[in-house]
Order: sequence, then structure tokens, then C-alpha cells
Amino acid sequence: MTILTIPQAPTLEHPLPAGMRDLLPPEASLRRAIARAFLGRAELFGYEFVIPPIFEYAHTIERGLGTLDPREIVRFVEPETGEVVALRPDVTPQIARLVSTRFEGKPPPYRLAYDASVLRRRAGSRARTHRQIAQLGVELIGVAPLDGDLELLVLAATALAAMGLPAFTIDLGHAEIARSLLADVEPSRAAHLADALAKKDVARIETLAVGLPTRDALVELPALHGDPTVLSRVPEALSSSPARGAIDQLRGLVDRLIASLESEGVRGATISVDLSEVRGLAYYTGPFYQLFAEGPGVAIGAGGRYDQLLSRFSTSQALPASGLALDVDALLWALRLSTAKVLERPRRVIVTGEGAEGFARALRASGVSAAVIEGDAAAYARAWGYELIACVSPAGVEVSDAEGRTRETIPTEAAIARLSASS
Amino acid sequence: MTILTIPQAPTLEHPLPAGMRDLLPPEASLRRAIARAFLGRAELFGYEFVIPPIFEYAHTIERGLGTLDPREIVRFVEPETGEVVALRPDVTPQIARLVSTRFEGKPPPYRLAYDASVLRRRAGSRARTHRQIAQLGVELIGVAPLDGDLELLVLAATALAAMGLPAFTIDLGHAEIARSLLADVEPSRAAHLADALAKKDVARIETLAVGLPTRDALVELPALHGDPTVLSRVPEALSSSPARGAIDQLRGLVDRLIASLESEGVRGATISVDLSEVRGLAYYTGPFYQLFAEGPGVAIGAGGRYDQLLSRFSTSQALPASGLALDVDALLWALRLSTAKVLERPRRVIVTGEGAEGFARALRASGVSAAVIEGDAAAYARAWGYELIACVSPAGVEVSDAEGRTRETIPTEAAIARLSASS
Repeated sequence: MTILTIPQAPTLEHPLPAGMRDLLPPEASLRRAIARAFLGRAELFGYEFVIPPIFEYAHTIERGLGTLDPREIVRFVEPETGEVVALRPDVTPQIARLVSTRFEGKPPPYRLAYDASVLRRRAGSRARTHRQIAQLGVELIGVAPLDGDLELLVLAATALAAMGLPAFTIDLGHAEIARSLLADVEPSRAAHLADALAKKDVARIETLAVGLPTRDALVELPALHGDPTVLSRVPEALSSSPARGAIDQLRGLVDRLIASLESEGVRGATISVDLSEVRGLAYYTGPFYQLFAEGPGVAIGAGGRYDQLLSRFSTSQALPASGLALDVDALLWALRLSTAKVLERPRRVIVTGEGAEGFARALRASGVSAAVIEGDAAAYARAWGYELIACVSPAGVEVSDAEGRTRETIPTEAAIARLSASS
Repeated sequence: MTILTIPQAPTLEHPLPAGMRDLLPPEASLRRAIARAFLGRAELFGYEFVIPPIFEYAHTIERGLGTLDPREIVRFVEPETGEVVALRPDVTPQIARLVSTRFEGKPPPYRLAYDASVLRRRAGSRARTHRQIAQLGVELIGVAPLDGDLELLVLAATALAAMGLPAFTIDLGHAEIARSLLADVEPSRAAHLADALAKKDVARIETLAVGLPTRDALVELPALHGDPTVLSRVPEALSSSPARGAIDQLRGLVDRLIASLESEGVRGATISVDLSEVRGLAYYTGPFYQLFAEGPGVAIGAGGRYDQLLSRFSTSQALPASGLALDVDALLWALRLSTAKVLERPRRVIVTGEGAEGFARALRASGVSAAVIEGDAAAYARAWGYELIACVSPAGVEVSDAEGRTRETIPTEAAIARLSASS
């Protein structure tokens, strides 16, 4: 017996550049639903949507770099002009550039929202890869500290609640707490102290701060994190230190935030504070915060106040500014752990048989997703996540689920009503 | 008298790379509304949303290049790996790559939708600039010719009608008409003939086609454009030529399209045909079309059948395929000439005064966009397109328009009902 060997067709592989990926169904549409919910909320707060370009001159982006390391920027030489451009690692520098150049004649405050993909190199990693990060963000420029911070936090919290995220934490700090205590410290020593604060390493802080007038205050900081009652028992060493003003601001913001979330009916939010938080110390100038939820190991959102940013782009426009961005993939992860409302899709039905087109048209008019196929409808429905199959014939419509069960044949009109009832 | 000259602060300019631009309010949010309407429609037809990466290896993109000139691709050297990557000039090659590598185990047909920005060099232009083009597209892979083409056209036409575009034209051709008549012609002569067909230059066609068996048919083509009745008076020279099959297909598609648009209640669509259309002759394999509307000088959409595309990516998957993409900026232009429904936004109200926050919250709960500002509310409202100003005080809410007219003070509850009534 001869076994015929059919020569294998040459397999073509089409890898993506490291760090790039496709978003497939259903993730891509869920991400879109999240964007719609967030931007709809931002619109209710008066935020206007803007779309900055996907790359621009590297020196422009670098001018407004926030907490990012410049090594995280993916730069390339623009082949037409030979100039170095950057695929944006963050949208905030673009917003700052846009506000300082494009809104002449339009008075502040600027309330702007975006839905953007940013690209970052994994700095320091040997893997030499990028990460493409989907961000939803809002920037509020020209509103005084506390008022502006509060607005962004309320916007984000009500958006998360509206999406159906059952529980999340808003963890707040204030950049001026550590900065004010390190203001007169020699830079390299201050950097070591900031590092020790980040690690809440009290022993090291005690050693590094020997002889500093703010030593007692610095040593107290690492213990001051947790629920907001921390702010009502700030030790004397801090309340008499240069950090006092920032602590008072943070307390004021937290009190107002608790009251606002109560008024908005947001029940899932837990508020925590961390007085030794030093993330982005060189960038933020006031309150800053991260949002957390169960599931992803990273923050689902982050933001803060950066009153110096605008002046890097325009000497005539030194406006107060704060911003907040959600990490869409992290948020999607958290939302999928619950059965969040935002992830609900219209009912999806496969339609087959004679007259399938007309029946599909009627379903669509009732808000049901209806796709016409030929062949094995049940296998197709299972593979692509369709819930029901409608087989149309002159006798009526035979309805079954994706497993081929619960078959019944009902008249066409009744079938339309039935299939669109709970979609 | 001495005139004091105040030294001008150094003006910082932040130009964008050529061809890049910001989308500002309200264009950006209108574009978003268009995307929502189109993708919502696509979802009802069972299309799944996908998000391919913003760049990938140039050789992958080039493999699936359609009607584009390879010189239109913006390539750069990926700094981590030294490999040449391309900022996508078109999404279709990405979809073809994705279908051939990512959907193992999922049966066709593949119904996919995207919302993407593509980047093209202006090939042949001395200006050395790019264009960033916003596209909304659908790809239907694995559905037989005519059925698939019809589905995409009905989807697009019903989406445009749902957006409120009052009138548009669908201009159809068929790639096999000219191709079948040029099949046995020596390539450079065929190219000249295709060029003459594109220009409807009958005299030149007559000269170039001397001695060809398809000469009479080729000479007839340029006159055969206009309303679909053209298809019912095709001259003998064509109906007995190798183009007959393609002409019959086109007639069949047009008849079904007219019937479907009638069933869907789409009244604004005008259908035209052009039998000498040769755009993308080397790429399309069946019906192809462009969508036009008053306003932009370019098509608001285009698409067609490219049954050879998938086999460029996978030798095991030679599926029939067709695709359609809308040019969002051109469509926005056309929509703004009318008062299209899709461009309507929620009512926008500026809120000021004591208790502004609580009043704004109540408005938002009623679906009104409400922004709290301090300072000159009327000037702000005019600059940013807010329709009304609500000044809250213990005595009630004073409502005025952006010009400061029609002032009246009404109780808070009544003001909420009043302001949200027609939003």
C-alpha cells in the first residue's frame, strides 16, 4: 500500500512587531463599550472630545513628559524630513501643546476628553518590547486646585459606577507633602529619602534624615496610610511642619469627595490615603491618586494635578491643570470579574433558511444583532457567541439555542417579538 | 517722551509634522458620533469589532496592499530590532493577516468591523507630506459574490440613512468587465487601454484597440454610465463579449440592491453604474463601488470584492472577500451640509452661582451636559457652544441664553424640568 503524502503548502507566518497585538472579538467591542460609557459621562460634565495625531515631533512630546522616563518613548526618523518624531507615550503632553497653540480666543477652563492608544518602550527591560496601552482620559485646565481635582474624581467614580463596576478604591496622596519636607535637602540625599519613603522604610528614613529639621515629620509619614481617618490623627511633628498646608488640602479634598460620592449615589467606592506616596513627585504639584479594582495587578486609572505643565509649552499661559486617565485593558479585566452592565451586548441571533434576509431585517429593526449564514448554524453560533438560531421557513420560524436545544416553531410575527423581547 | 518697549516673551511654536493634525471640538465629537452610528449598525448585522495594531512589519502590509501605491506607505526602522515597520496605509491587509492567523477553529464567514486611523504619504507630490485618514470599515470574508456585496452595500446605505444623510449616490462597476476584455491584450497596451477607459477617451480606445477581437466592446464601454437603465440597453458588441458574465452579475446586484433599499425604507440613495470604471482593476475581482454625497470633492466611501486577497496571506484559506470603508472626514463634511440627526448633541448648559454643583448634578442625571464655571458665563458659553446659562441662587435659577437674553428666574425643580425638556 502506498501512502500518498500531500506536500504541505508553505506555511506563512505573519508575526507582529514585539509588543503589538490585535484586539479580537469580543474584547475589542467591550473596550469600545467602556469608551462609550466613559466619554458619555465626560460629555455630561461638559468635556469636549479631541483627537491629537498619533505621532508628533519628539521634542514636543518630551517637553511635556510627566512621570514617564524619556527612555520609554518610541522615536523614529520621519523618512520625508529626517526629523525625529515620537509615537506618543502619553496624551497629556499633546493636550498641553494643543491648549497652548490651538485655543486662542477661547477662554479657560478647558475641559477635554480623549480616547487614545499610547505606545511605551519597556525601559530597562532586556526584552526590548513595546506596550500599546489604550487610555481614556480627561484633562481639566484652568480650574483651581481642589475644585478641579474633585471634579475629575467625581467624573471617574460616577463613570465606573455607571459601567457597573461593583467596587473600587481611590487612593489619594499629595505631592507637596514629601516635597515640602525635602525642599531644603541636598538633591541626592532627597532622592534617597524619596526612595525610602516609596518603600515605607522607616529605619532608612531615620538614618538618612538625621540632622534635618523635618526628620520627625518624615519618619511619621510611612505609617500614615489607610482609610481617611488617618487624616484626623496626624501627629504634631507633621501638623507643625511645612507639610501642613498640603495635608490640610488633602483632608479638604477627601471630605468633599466623600460628600460628593454620597450625593451622586456612588456606593462602590472606597477611599484611602497615603501620605508617603511619592510617585511622580517631580511632576505633580498637588493631589494625585490611583484607582484600583479587584483583578488586574495594576491601577485601572491614575491622575493628579500638574500646575507647571502648561508653562512648559507657553510662557503666557501658566494655568492650573489636572488630568486623569483610565487604563482600558486593566479596567476591562476588572469589569469582566463581575457581570458589569457596560459589557452587555444586544442579543445576537443567527438566521438561516428561506426568507432569512427579511427576517433578519425585522430583527435588526428591533435592536437585535442578526447575521444570515448558510451551513452549520449551531457550530457557527457556538464559535462566534450567538445565543439563538432562527431557521425561517414558510411554516414559521424554528428557534433553537446554540446547542440545538429547545426547538419550537412559531409564527414569524411572534418570533420577532419573542427574539427581541429581552434583548 | 519715552516709549517703553516691553520685551516680548519668547514665543514657543509647536508645529506638527507635515500632514498631522489635531481634531478639535466639535469636529472630534461629531466624528465619534459618526463612528458610533456606523459601528452600531454593523453590530446589528452581526459584525464583530476588531482593533489591529497601529503599525506592523512593512512586508506584511505590502503583501495585502490593494489599490494603493507602495510609495504611499510610511515606513520606519523600528529602533529596538532594526526591522522595517509600516504605519498602516489601509486596514484591509491587517484584517486579511488577522483572519489568516488568528481565527483558527472559528468557521467563516467572518464579519469584522473597524474604526481606525490610517496614514498615507502623498505619493508623487513634492510637498512630502502625509495624510492621516479616519476610516470606518467592514470586511465580509467567506460569503459568495453578490450576496456579500449586497450585504455590505445595504449595511452602508442604511447606516448613512440612519445618520440622517439626506441624499447620496452609490456608483457601481465590475472589475471583470474591463479585465475580461483586456485579458488577452499585451500588458503595456492593456495598461494604455485601461488609462483611456478611465478617461472615457473613445477616440484613443478606438486607435489602441485596432485589431483586437474585443475592440467593438471596448469602444462601447465609455458611454455606458449613468442610471441603472444603462444595464438594460447593453449593446450586442458587449452582450456577446467575454464581459457578458460580469455585466449580468452587475445587473443582478443592482436589481437586488434596489429591492433591498426599498425594503429597508432607504429613500435618499441614488444608484448609478459605470461600466468603464477601472479603478483598482488589478485588485478587485468583482463588483466595486464608490459612495458620493454633496459637499466633499472625494468619495465618502468605497469598497468592492477582492477574492484573491486572503490567498496572499494563507495558501489554505482562499476565501471570497469584500470590504467597504467610509472616509469619516468626507462623510462629516457631507453631513454638516444638512442638519443630520447624528450630529445632534445633548443640550449644553453652563451653571454658575451658589449651589451650582448640586444643580449641575441634577441636570446631568436628566441627560443634559452641565459645566460649572466661575467668571463671565456668557462669553464662555459663546466661545464653547453652550446654549444656556443657569445661575443658581437661593431665590431660584436664573436662565439666560448665551447672548444674555431671555432672563427669568424659576424655582429649582421647574428649572431642571425646563432645561432637560428638549435635550
